[in-house]
Parts: sequence; structure tokens; C-alpha cells
Amino acid sequence: MKRIESVREMQDLAGRLRREGRRIAFVPTMGYLHEGHLSLIDEARKAGDVVVVSVFVNPTQFGPGEDFDVYPRDISGDETKAAGRGADILFHPSAREMYPGEPLTRVHVEKITEVLCGARRRGHFSGVATVVTKLFNIVRPHAAVFGQKDAQQAAVIMTMVRDLNMDVEIRIVPTVREKDGLAMSSRNVRLSPEQRKHAVMLSKVLFGLRDTIRPDTAVEPLLKEAEATLSGLPGAELEYLEMRSFPGLEPVERFDRDAVIALAVRFGEVRLIDNILLKNDLDS
Amino acid sequence: MKRIESVREMQDLAGRLRREGRRIAFVPTMGYLHEGHLSLIDEARKAGDVVVVSVFVNPTQFGPGEDFDVYPRDISGDETKAAGRGADILFHPSAREMYPGEPLTRVHVEKITEVLCGARRRGHFSGVATVVTKLFNIVRPHAAVFGQKDAQQAAVIMTMVRDLNMDVEIRIVPTVREKDGLAMSSRNVRLSPEQRKHAVMLSKVLFGLRDTIRPDTAVEPLLKEAEATLSGLPGAELEYLEMRSFPGLEPVERFDRDAVIALAVRFGEVRLIDNILLKNDLDS
Repeated sequence: MKRIESVREMQDLAGRLRREGRRIAFVPTMGYLHEGHLSLIDEARKAGDVVVVSVFVNPTQFGPGEDFDVYPRDISGDETKAAGRGADILFHPSAREMYPGEPLTRVHVEKITEVLCGARRRGHFSGVATVVTKLFNIVRPHAAVFGQKDAQQAAVIMTMVRDLNMDVEIRIVPTVREKDGLAMSSRNVRLSPEQRKHAVMLSKVLFGLRDTIRPDTAVEPLLKEAEATLSGLPGAELEYLEMRSFPGLEPVERFDRDAVIALAVRFGEVRLIDNILLKNDLDS
Repeated sequence: MKRIESVREMQDLAGRLRREGRRIAFVPTMGYLHEGHLSLIDEARKAGDVVVVSVFVNPTQFGPGEDFDVYPRDISGDETKAAGRGADILFHPSAREMYPGEPLTRVHVEKITEVLCGARRRGHFSGVATVVTKLFNIVRPHAAVFGQKDAQQAAVIMTMVRDLNMDVEIRIVPTVREKDGLAMSSRNVRLSPEQRKHAVMLSKVLFGLRDTIRPDTAVEPLLKEAEATLSGLPGAELEYLEMRSFPGLEPVERFDRDAVIALAVRFGEVRLIDNILLKNDLDS
């Protein structure tokens, strides 16, 4: 596996690969790779014949007081794991390489960034949309793979790609979970053993809702009950638990179209998110 | 010359041309082509071996009450002129083709869009940056050519391309003028004979300043005098006359770096802009 740190070198290589008729599949990450990321690499290998993985902890998508400084990093571990899973190129630019001067340009997606995590993390999704635009212009992928775990991020990327006519096929891969159901996340290592034990309830609550909700179910009372369960977890603070359409993220009262039930819970300094997609069979 | 109206067809053709190793040079326009645009096509022929000209009157860069509805249009004339000057492809999408649904995504450049025209035309440069991003993703040019007449637009595009790592070479071509000095503009046809006569003063004032200002000149009194001249034109309303650094568009008091002197004047419903670049020899 080749490691590239320069924007110019990555861009030139991407251009050369494209001229040779190779198909570039891209997995953008913030590193500290776990099995969830590696499943994205598996999907990328199906989506193209050159797999580029980027590792970049993007400062512009962290707000003041968020966990940019303590976000876990392990580039040599990442390199081993990505290579082991069949990635061809690891793109690992420095912040200075990505933002050499004061950036004045932002890509902003309206409406769907104002709810769920977006309502609590001001500017987060602008930071995400902007850095993904930059990475797409540098890596020039034919396809890019994102995890369903960040469902709102997936919706934002899909909307941006559509609106800006980016010629990139977006693939969303189901969340990979620990044996007990906890969604894999680079942030899980920051949980205390006690917090880790309680965190299993996030997915249990979501699975319970998925198994209960039918198109004619009144959802509100079920969500209230689930909220009470999560709020009652020792040391946990529920930020939100909501059902919304997907990928439009509009409020829905019944499961009458494709929907997502998404939540965010804080355990002390550690903020975890999870969600399930409900596929409406009446669609399509 | 080939005429294309479909985004998908243009995007596929661009991909094919790139795989064949052709170099795409792009001239985005709002049509009603005049000699200024045609000089951009000349430059594009030097910048690449396939020249794409787009004609699209972009609704999202016009504010309420601006001249979108009356902006002059003549697609068959444009086709003849572009072909005559050696363009290979005319890309002419409908508004519905470019904006099939409600667009949620905007590309916004901060600071340099808040002055000059940007201070008076709220949202204008977001509309420009967004549509140029879309057009770049559709036409996928190696090089793109813009006119210096829209100096602030040129600065915005250059900044956006730098910040978002767009792999497009930007070329800026000097303003083409009528014999008496009036900057060519599609809007000039909307001037009455009387207004047209007075409009010559816009460039005369700019040339006068260019010929007077030296690195040690106190600029402010000269600008005040020029403002008085323009404000005194019958039927004219001066919006602004300012000297700023280029392309950073910061206020400057002396000509101690590359600078632009830019103005906007309204004759009734018709708003004209013009500018001159002052190249500081101490730079390089």
C-alpha cells in the first residue's frame, strides 16, 4: 500500500489512474480504524479497482469544546489495518496541507443540517461537507463509501452530491456492531468500563423500536418510553431520540416511508450516536 | 459545433474526452455573447484542445427585483458566434435541468463577497460560486476562462478553486471595450442612446485614475473627485467607486500592491460595472 501526504501528489496520481481507465473507490475516515471502517474498505473493493482510504481528523468539523484534541489517533495501526484489508493508497495529509491559508470557502447544506446532531453541533456539517468536497476534488473517486452509523452525515453527502452534480456514486454500508450490539466507533475506547456496560442500551432500544414499529403504529408513545429508558441510564445524558424520513430528515409521525430512528447520548465527555433505518416496503 | 442540453450527456462526454487525454477548456457565460466573451473563447483555445462554452442564465445569482426576466437572450445567435470563434461544444441546459429539485446546497465564499457588488447584491456570489461548482463538476475542465470585467467574480472563483482544491487552472482575460472605452456587457443593449453617451465616462474615469496613481499617490482625494464626476452624470446613480487589493479585496490607501479600482453605476434599470487592475511592479 502506498502512503501519500501531499495533495498535489494524490491529485496527480488520481488523474493518471483515471486516464488509465481505472475506477477509484474512496473511503474517507478520521482514522483509528475499527471493523466498521474496514467493512467500508470491503465495499470499496467491490465498487472500484483502486481503493483509496483517507485518514484526516478534520479540525473544521469540530466545534469549540468538542473532542478534536483528544480524538484517538494511530496512523501506523491504521496503515496496517487498511493494507491488510486490501486498500491500495492511504491518503494522510496534515492540517497544514489541507488548509494552507485561512479558508474562506464553505459548502453548506441547508435544512437537513439543522436537526438531530446538526442542531447541537453548529457548523459541524458545513465542516464535513466542505472537507468531503475537498477530498473528492483531490482523490477524484468514481465511488465513495460512507457508514450508516453517521446517518445524518450520509444524508448530507447524498444531498450535496446531487445538488452540486458531483459525479461520484455514494454507497452507504450498514453499521458494524460489537457482539452485544454497541455500534463500533473510534470514540468507544474513551468509555469507562461502567459507561461501556450501560452503552449497550443504545442499540437495544433501537432494535426494540425496529421490531415493534409497523406502518400503523403510533410512534410517539414508543419514543417517549424509549427516551425514559435512555435518560434513566446511570451517567448518561440523552441529547435526542427522533424518527425522521430518510434521507430528507423531515419529521414523521408514522412509519409510512423510509425512515431513520436516530439518537445521541452523552456519557460524560464521550458522545455516542446510533440509528436504525426502517425500510418501508411500500416504497419503490 | 455540438450542442448539449443534458447534464448527464455533458458529464459523460467530458469523462470520455479526459480518458482520451484531451484537455478541456471551459468558458462559462450567461449568453448574449459579445466580443468580450469571444475573447474568452480565443483564450480557451490556447488553454486546451476542446473548448466548451456554456450559456446559462443562472436564476440563483439574481436577487428579487434584479434583471433575471429581462436579461437578454439569443441562443441561436450565441451558437453562431461561438462556432465561428472555434468553440467545439455549446452546453445549454435549462433551469429545470440544472435545478431539478429544491437545491439545499450552497457554496459560499466569505469576506471578499461582502464588499463592492457583494454588499449590494446579497446572495449573488453564493449563486455564482454554487453554479460554477456545478458547471465544473459537469464540464470537468482542465482550464476555465473568466473576464476581468467581473473582477470580484474572478477573485471569488480564484479563492473557491484554491480553498476547495479544484484541479482547474483559472485564466483571467482583460476586459474588451467598445471603441470609446465602454466595457462590453450584455446589458449595454438596454441603455438608451442618451445613457449610452454618458456611460463612456465610466471607463474615462478609470483610465484617468490609472494614469495618475503612483505608489506614493494619496488615493482618497482622487477617488473623491472621480466620484463627483460620476455622480454628476445625468441620470446616473453611483453605487460605489473603490480601490482594493486584488484578489484579496482588502481596503488599500495607497497603490503599494496589486490592486483593483472598481465601480458600479446605475442608469435607471441598467446597472453597469467596470474596473481596472493596477499591477504593482514591486510584486512578482
